[in-house]
Amino acid sequence: MIAMLSPDLTARILAFRDARDWKQFHNLRTLSTSIVLEAAELAEHTQWTRDTELDEVVRARRPLIEQEVADLAILMTYLITDLGIDLEQAVADKLRNNAERYPVDKARGSAKKYDEL
Amino acid sequence: MIAMLSPDLTARILAFRDARDWKQFHNLRTLSTSIVLEAAELAEHTQWTRDTELDEVVRARRPLIEQEVADLAILMTYLITDLGIDLEQAVADKLRNNAERYPVDKARGSAKKYDEL
Amino acid sequence: MIAMLSPDLTARILAFRDARDWKQFHNLRTLSTSIVLEAAELAEHTQWTRDTELDEVVRARRPLIEQEVADLAILMTYLITDLGIDLEQAVADKLRNNAERYPVDKARGSAKKYDEL
Amino acid sequence: MIAMLSPDLTARILAFRDARDWKQFHNLRTLSTSIVLEAAELAEHTQWTRDTELDEVVRARRPLIEQEVADLAILMTYLITDLGIDLEQAVADKLRNNAERYPVDKARGSAKKYDEL
Repeated sequence: MIAMLSPDLTARILAFRDARDWKQFHNLRTLSTSIVLEAAELAEHTQWTRDTELDEVVRARRPLIEQEVADLAILMTYLITDLGIDLEQAVADKLRNNAERYPVDKARGSAKKYDEL
Repeated sequence: MIAMLSPDLTARILAFRDARDWKQFHNLRTLSTSIVLEAAELAEHTQWTRDTELDEVVRARRPLIEQEVADLAILMTYLITDLGIDLEQAVADKLRNNAERYPVDKARGSAKKYDEL
Repeated sequence: MIAMLSPDLTARILAFRDARDWKQFHNLRTLSTSIVLEAAELAEHTQWTRDTELDEVVRARRPLIEQEVADLAILMTYLITDLGIDLEQAVADKLRNNAERYPVDKARGSAKKYDEL
Repeated sequence: MIAMLSPDLTARILAFRDARDWKQFHNLRTLSTSIVLEAAELAEHTQWTRDTELDEVVRARRPLIEQEVADLAILMTYLITDLGIDLEQAVADKLRNNAERYPVDKARGSAKKYDEL
């Protein structure tokens, strides 16, 4: 099991941006749009894939999939840094919120949305 | 500057899923689609926002924005765990790749894509 | 079935698919995913664009923009044909619904969502 | 300009916008973002759906699906009107372009992208 990014790598992501003077292009709109576009590139790998073919796609396209996931992590690093989001805290809060929306006894084994449970 | 997720919180994200028996619904297709949908919810906060209004939107909607970002981090945790992706390695590789595509002297101060530089 | 485009062009869109035996790949999931991906390609043209640069982007990239819009229309033609949606009726119904959600006196000059009006 | 829908309904779509003075919010960026968001809402209906459950989802959710498709058609009507796109011509051009990328003898029965054929 692999945790998300080390402080050292986070610093390198930010240094990469500074060296190119790209922070001027980054704000909530451009970064969230970019996250949508990278997520779409990730989803493109299963655009036409039947359920029975999913494992094969993961095997055949792993390097490309890892690149899209890395792009997403890089964009999220810019976003949480620029907005000053404490991701650890935000995720802990969201898990608590989700636990209320999806109580174990109602949500267990169901893919329904909380408002349909 | 805030690093991504601690091993403890990652374990809690996975325990949340186990308690609800939701792993059966997760694969590359459903998780990448879900990442697109959460990214779209994040982008919705600036759907109609003019450049001059961006700071105000961030101020007014911070709690909601943090929730969308947390949802993205949770989904990415499921994806990298299930696919066995070493995110630290994947991001380090991608930064190296991006450094070749976007050499500092050509990319500095430009928002152009690498194939238009 | 009400055509999005002329009946002749709609027929050519469907004949294009038949000649390639592609209907087997089309269902609500694959077509809606494909619509997301094409919409993302359209949105990519303004990924980094400031408000003041929008007109210039439209001028410079018009042929590419028209191609993305055409792709969206083609995918929507497959979807409404396969699902048997009467688009003319569906749009008329939606306009009526939107008129209730966005009464002129409250919505005039506002970009707020109906639940925030 | 060729309407996506009947000229009468297209006129009603535009009158709806005029009555609310919403054209001021519409440009290539805001409309293409909105198309992404509506497409994501459409895709949400099959977010967790297995291949074997697709027909059931279409049956159970038809009214909601028709509303999302109508929203997409309304947004595309704004976009092609504002940009002065002749959709009939754009689609005819794209079909010709696709016919070159996907020749029948190579593309028949294959879901591969043109650059992998």
